[in-house]
Amino acid sequence: MVKKVSLPRKDWFNLPEGTIYLDGNSLGPPAKGTSMVMRSVIDNQWGRELIGAWNTASWLDLPQSLGILIAPLIGVSEGSISVGDTLSIKLYQALAAALSLSVPRKVVLTDSGNFPTDLYIAQGLVDQLHQNHRLKIVEPECVLDHLSEEVAAVYLTHIDYRTGRRHPMDEISKRARELGVITIWDLAHSIGAVPLNLKSTNAEFAVGCTYKYLNGGPGAPAFIYVRPDIIDSIEPILPGWLGHKRPFSMETQYDPASSVARFRIGTPSVLQSKVLESALQLWRDLDLEELWQASVKLTELFIEEVERRCPQLQLVSPRDSEQRGSHISFASEYSYEIIQALVDHGVVGDFREPNLMRFGFAPLYLDESDIMKSVDILERVVSDKCWLVPKYQSRKAVT
Amino acid sequence: MVKKVSLPRKDWFNLPEGTIYLDGNSLGPPAKGTSMVMRSVIDNQWGRELIGAWNTASWLDLPQSLGILIAPLIGVSEGSISVGDTLSIKLYQALAAALSLSVPRKVVLTDSGNFPTDLYIAQGLVDQLHQNHRLKIVEPECVLDHLSEEVAAVYLTHIDYRTGRRHPMDEISKRARELGVITIWDLAHSIGAVPLNLKSTNAEFAVGCTYKYLNGGPGAPAFIYVRPDIIDSIEPILPGWLGHKRPFSMETQYDPASSVARFRIGTPSVLQSKVLESALQLWRDLDLEELWQASVKLTELFIEEVERRCPQLQLVSPRDSEQRGSHISFASEYSYEIIQALVDHGVVGDFREPNLMRFGFAPLYLDESDIMKSVDILERVVSDKCWLVPKYQSRKAVT
Repeated sequence: MVKKVSLPRKDWFNLPEGTIYLDGNSLGPPAKGTSMVMRSVIDNQWGRELIGAWNTASWLDLPQSLGILIAPLIGVSEGSISVGDTLSIKLYQALAAALSLSVPRKVVLTDSGNFPTDLYIAQGLVDQLHQNHRLKIVEPECVLDHLSEEVAAVYLTHIDYRTGRRHPMDEISKRARELGVITIWDLAHSIGAVPLNLKSTNAEFAVGCTYKYLNGGPGAPAFIYVRPDIIDSIEPILPGWLGHKRPFSMETQYDPASSVARFRIGTPSVLQSKVLESALQLWRDLDLEELWQASVKLTELFIEEVERRCPQLQLVSPRDSEQRGSHISFASEYSYEIIQALVDHGVVGDFREPNLMRFGFAPLYLDESDIMKSVDILERVVSDKCWLVPKYQSRKAVT
Repeated sequence: MVKKVSLPRKDWFNLPEGTIYLDGNSLGPPAKGTSMVMRSVIDNQWGRELIGAWNTASWLDLPQSLGILIAPLIGVSEGSISVGDTLSIKLYQALAAALSLSVPRKVVLTDSGNFPTDLYIAQGLVDQLHQNHRLKIVEPECVLDHLSEEVAAVYLTHIDYRTGRRHPMDEISKRARELGVITIWDLAHSIGAVPLNLKSTNAEFAVGCTYKYLNGGPGAPAFIYVRPDIIDSIEPILPGWLGHKRPFSMETQYDPASSVARFRIGTPSVLQSKVLESALQLWRDLDLEELWQASVKLTELFIEEVERRCPQLQLVSPRDSEQRGSHISFASEYSYEIIQALVDHGVVGDFREPNLMRFGFAPLYLDESDIMKSVDILERVVSDKCWLVPKYQSRKAVT
C-alpha cells in the first residue's frame, strides 16, 4: 500500500500543553476544528434548516453514510455496516440474530476476558429470550479447544480491554467456519489500532465503538457489521421504525429494510454522528499497516524502557506484537496510586481492576520522545513511592 | 403557580428571518448559545480534560442528572428517570419489564393510532420473547372498553403523532389501576406541550423523547420513568455495564443498580446530553400551565382562521383543547403539495401519510402575529392552487 500520510500527525490535534496522552484507547482526543464543525451543524443545519435538515443535510442517511466510512477500516464492503446506538445494543442485535440463525445448537461460547457488558448482554439474552441456550465462558486461551458442533455462536472481544491480548482472529474464524459456528467479533479495541480484514474471515457479525482510536467523541455511536448474504434472513430483535423498508409510510406492520438498514432502530444521534463523520475524514488517507507498525515501535520502546527502569512493575500483556493490540498493562500492588500520580504529572493512562495500569499508544499523536518522557515520569513516581502520598489514594471511577 | 417568565420568549431563539416554524413538535429549534455550549464541552472538557472529564465534568452522571431536570416536566419525583438511548430502546425496556411483572396475564393492549415504532417494538417483543402473549391493537377511542383483567399491560402514546388527539390519561390510568393493568405512557408529543402529573396517575412506566418541544437537538437522548417502588423488582432486558451496581469493578456477573440507574445500558451520548442539559435550563422557570394556555390560544386562533379562510381543508384533530396536545392536522387531497408550498413560502409544517398537513404550536417562540401570517400564506397557496405547480409535487421523506 502506498504511504499517504506521514506519522505522527500532532498537527491534527490540540492536546493540552504538558500532557502525554496514553489513554486514546479509552477516549480519543478531538481533532482540531471539531468544535467548528459542531458549530456549523448547530447554527447552519439545525438552526437554519430546522426539520428540513433531515433531508437537506442528509441526517437521515448518517447510519449508512458513516458505515461507508468505517467499512475500509475493518476490511469489509460498503453497505454492510449500520452506525448508531451503543455497543451494548449493537451486540444485543448481533447475538440475538446469531442465536435465531443457529437453531438447534444451544451453546453460546465466549471467554472470561470479555468486556463486562458483552457478558451481561449475552447472559440476559440467554436468561430471558433463549432459555434453552447456555452461556459457556472459558479461559481466553482455550476458545479454540471449545469450538465444536454444539456451539451455536462464538462471540469474542478481539483485543482484551485490560491486557491488550489479541485473539488469533484468522485461526478462530477458520475453525468456526469449519464447524458451522456463527462468529461475532467485538472490535472495540481493534478498530483504528490494528489492520483488519474481516471479509477474509467470513465472520457473520462484528460490532465496535468509535470513540477510542477513531476519536469520534464521548458517546459516539457504535456500529454493527452484518455479512451481506445473511442480512435478509434476519428478523431484527429491535424492530425500530427507521429500520423499516418504508419508514415514512408509517405502516402498522413492520417490514424490515432489505439492506443493513434493518439494523437501524430509532432516531440517529445527529450531533454525535456529525462529530464522528468529521473525525473519520482523517482516516481516509491513513495507511493502517503503517499506523500499526508505528504503534508497535512505540509500544516496544515503552515496554523495554519500563522493564529496564521500573523492574518492580510486571508486564501482563503479550510480548509478541502479533498477539496484542495498541495498549498494554503493567501490574503492581500500587497501580491505582501510580496512575493517579502519573496523571498529576501529565502522563494520562488509566487504572483497571484489580491491579493494572493501562497505557495505549496512538501513533497519530504520539512519538518516541513522548514515550521517553512518560517513562521518565513513571520512573520518578515509582522511585518516589507515590503510594505513600494520601492524595493519590482516593478512589474514583474512570471509564 | 406564580408566573415566572412571560411568553413568548423569542429572544431565547435565533429562528431564521422570514420563517414561521410550526414544526417544533417534530424537531425543536436550538436555543441561542447552543453552539457556544458545545464549543466549551468539546474544547474545554473533551479537549482539555480528556478521559478525566468522565469524572471532572460529571459526564458519567448525565443519565441521572438529566433525569432530575426532566422529572418536574412530567410531575414525578427526582431519581425516577434515566436518560439515554432512543425512544424505541426505552420503550423496549419498559414493555419487557411490564410483561415480566404481569405474569400470568397475556394480552398487551395498544391502539392503532400509536406511533409505528411503538407497534413494531411491541410486536417484536411478543413474537420473539413472549410468544404466549398477544398484541391487541384497538381503535384509540375503544381503549377503555378493552381494559380488563386479562390485560397484562396497556401502552399508549398519550398524544397522537398525527392528529394531536389526547388520551384521557387520568381515566385510563384509574381504570387500569382498578384492574391491575400495568400502564406505560409514551410522552413523545406531550412533554413540554401539556402539563403532566404522572405521579398522580400511579402509572408504572413512561418514556419520551427530548428533541421536540424541549429543543434538545436532533437525536437527543430519550428517557424512561419507572415508578420507584417497582424498580428493584425488575430484571432489565438490556443489562448494560453502566446499569451495574458497581460498573467499574468490571465483574463478570451482572448485578443491577438498586436505583433507576439499572435502566442505563452503554456509554451515554455525552455531546447530545450536554446540548439537552443546556436546553433544559430554559425549562426551570417556565410555568407549564401558562405555556399550555398560550398554546391553546394560538391553536384555536389557527383553527378558527383556517376554517374561515380555507374551508376546503378539513380539521381532523379534536376541537376541544382538553382532548388534544399542541399540534393539530388538517386533511386535504393536496396536503403534500400544500406543505411543500408553505415551506417554500417560509411556513414550516409537515406532511403525514396519508393526507395530513400537521402544524405544531410552541408558545416559546410563536405569537399571534405568526399565526395570522401563517394563515395568510396558507390561504394564498391554497387559492393559488399550489398542487398544480410541479416543484411542489416531488415526494421526499421528512421525519
